[in-house]
Amino acid sequence: MTKFDVHILGCGSATPSLRHLPACQVVNYRDRLLMIDCGEGAQLSLRRSRLKFSRITDIFISHMHGDHFLGLPGLLSTLALHQTGGTVTVHIQEQGANLLRNIMNVLCRDTSFELKYNIFDPVKGGVLLDTKSLKVTAFPLFHRVPCCGFRFDEKPKARHIKGDMIAFYNVPVYRIAEIKGGADYVTIDGRVIPNSALTTDADPSVSYAYCSDTVYDERVIEAVRGVDVLYHESTYGDDQAHKAAPRGHSTARQAAEVALRAGVKRLVLGHFSKSYEDETPLVAQAREIFPDTVAAHEGMIIHVL
Amino acid sequence: MTKFDVHILGCGSATPSLRHLPACQVVNYRDRLLMIDCGEGAQLSLRRSRLKFSRITDIFISHMHGDHFLGLPGLLSTLALHQTGGTVTVHIQEQGANLLRNIMNVLCRDTSFELKYNIFDPVKGGVLLDTKSLKVTAFPLFHRVPCCGFRFDEKPKARHIKGDMIAFYNVPVYRIAEIKGGADYVTIDGRVIPNSALTTDADPSVSYAYCSDTVYDERVIEAVRGVDVLYHESTYGDDQAHKAAPRGHSTARQAAEVALRAGVKRLVLGHFSKSYEDETPLVAQAREIFPDTVAAHEGMIIHVL
Repeated sequence: MTKFDVHILGCGSATPSLRHLPACQVVNYRDRLLMIDCGEGAQLSLRRSRLKFSRITDIFISHMHGDHFLGLPGLLSTLALHQTGGTVTVHIQEQGANLLRNIMNVLCRDTSFELKYNIFDPVKGGVLLDTKSLKVTAFPLFHRVPCCGFRFDEKPKARHIKGDMIAFYNVPVYRIAEIKGGADYVTIDGRVIPNSALTTDADPSVSYAYCSDTVYDERVIEAVRGVDVLYHESTYGDDQAHKAAPRGHSTARQAAEVALRAGVKRLVLGHFSKSYEDETPLVAQAREIFPDTVAAHEGMIIHVL
Repeated sequence: MTKFDVHILGCGSATPSLRHLPACQVVNYRDRLLMIDCGEGAQLSLRRSRLKFSRITDIFISHMHGDHFLGLPGLLSTLALHQTGGTVTVHIQEQGANLLRNIMNVLCRDTSFELKYNIFDPVKGGVLLDTKSLKVTAFPLFHRVPCCGFRFDEKPKARHIKGDMIAFYNVPVYRIAEIKGGADYVTIDGRVIPNSALTTDADPSVSYAYCSDTVYDERVIEAVRGVDVLYHESTYGDDQAHKAAPRGHSTARQAAEVALRAGVKRLVLGHFSKSYEDETPLVAQAREIFPDTVAAHEGMIIHVL
């Protein structure tokens, strides 16, 4: 089975507390590590997670608030001290790239790896990474500053070959790729062997969406439609619901409403206000609308498949 | 007794590890908090220390390496979220002030407190803070980038009044201040009462010096001469002594040599290389030269008096 895990390194909001760290996650896709947001202390959480620093290829920053960004200079400085070679691409808005360049220029001028910037506009969104097997897309969120979410979609996978049938029909090796892609096989004497006789269904392609900071908005529902796992901010519960919209945030119920209406399979709540000592009520509120809801916690690993 | 404590929030070097956090200390002088360096994660350590964020008035940055600076934007952002009013002065070199202004401008434009910059040249040093009871001075260190140490000197204190003698000689209240300062008292009929008859000795004025990152250099010895407590970097022990000078650092033995030759009372070692799982050998090496040596650790409180 393809590895597609999300490691929660921080799921608090605003400031680090003794209960939660600021926003940071790592998508481990087939041992390639894609970091999402990077709050202060991210590098230490990464060390605790035992994920390998050297496997990080991409870092996606949703918006320029400290609790989503301030771990990045330290992480890059540490990578610079230890990593040899490779490339790390930071996907970030222009203002953030300029700031990061400025910081690195003062604190850590030489990096042993190549530090690339992929500057994008969070208000517009778009495809940030497109590999043979995975596509990462940014989509607009609605917060106090330009902000986006990220969606990780696996591409369609190859169908499974039935080894005995391939042998029976003497299918030459050079035809295997197209048969895995769904093609029928035509024998030398012109007989058509339907693909269904040669293969079984491919593993399902799964998807993950991350909504860092946002008010409830219909457009978010469309953007995350049908994902297998949705991580959605849930800064507040019913008791502080009045604070949500003015501060550019959502409640647990609103996160659940998005999950329900977008037809996702599972919901993970995060970005909790520091005022909560216990997120159980937030989960309970969300479950009234969308039962398959859990609360994130530092150290949590979500298997997307 | 005057409160003059040093709280060690981080005493590791280079990068945060599961064993040590990057450089950060807080001098608690009569409940006024003076922070020295501010590595990533400092605000969380500060929370653990139970020191009050709102009592921080000054932050002194020794040099512009990430492990001494990267906690500062987050700390200031958190202060901005929670503190109302007051002034925080960041004592920092020009390059650092420019960078910090740039960061705050992007991440946290509005602060509810006044953020002041006291720009100084670490290569020249000089007096950074001068109150009725305490003087803080920067002095040059010798590292890979412009860097300084800080020295905290209590000013001479008032002599203790002998209440019964003051009553006996009928000393008027308005003369008390000068008598506490050491003056004799002349009675109305011209008799001179020596100060020693009216007062006992003042409490001793104590001093603390902090040497963040430096090679061994005679000039450092002069700068820290006679302090009660010296915190000195000791990145390496004998086993890695060859790395010290090329990287701009000291060994435990060199720190002890500074302590001995400067005639300090106590030595605290810190800024340990991540390669050490146990600093006992470093302390042992230092003690061969300067017996009154201990290793710093996160959470340690040093009573300077």
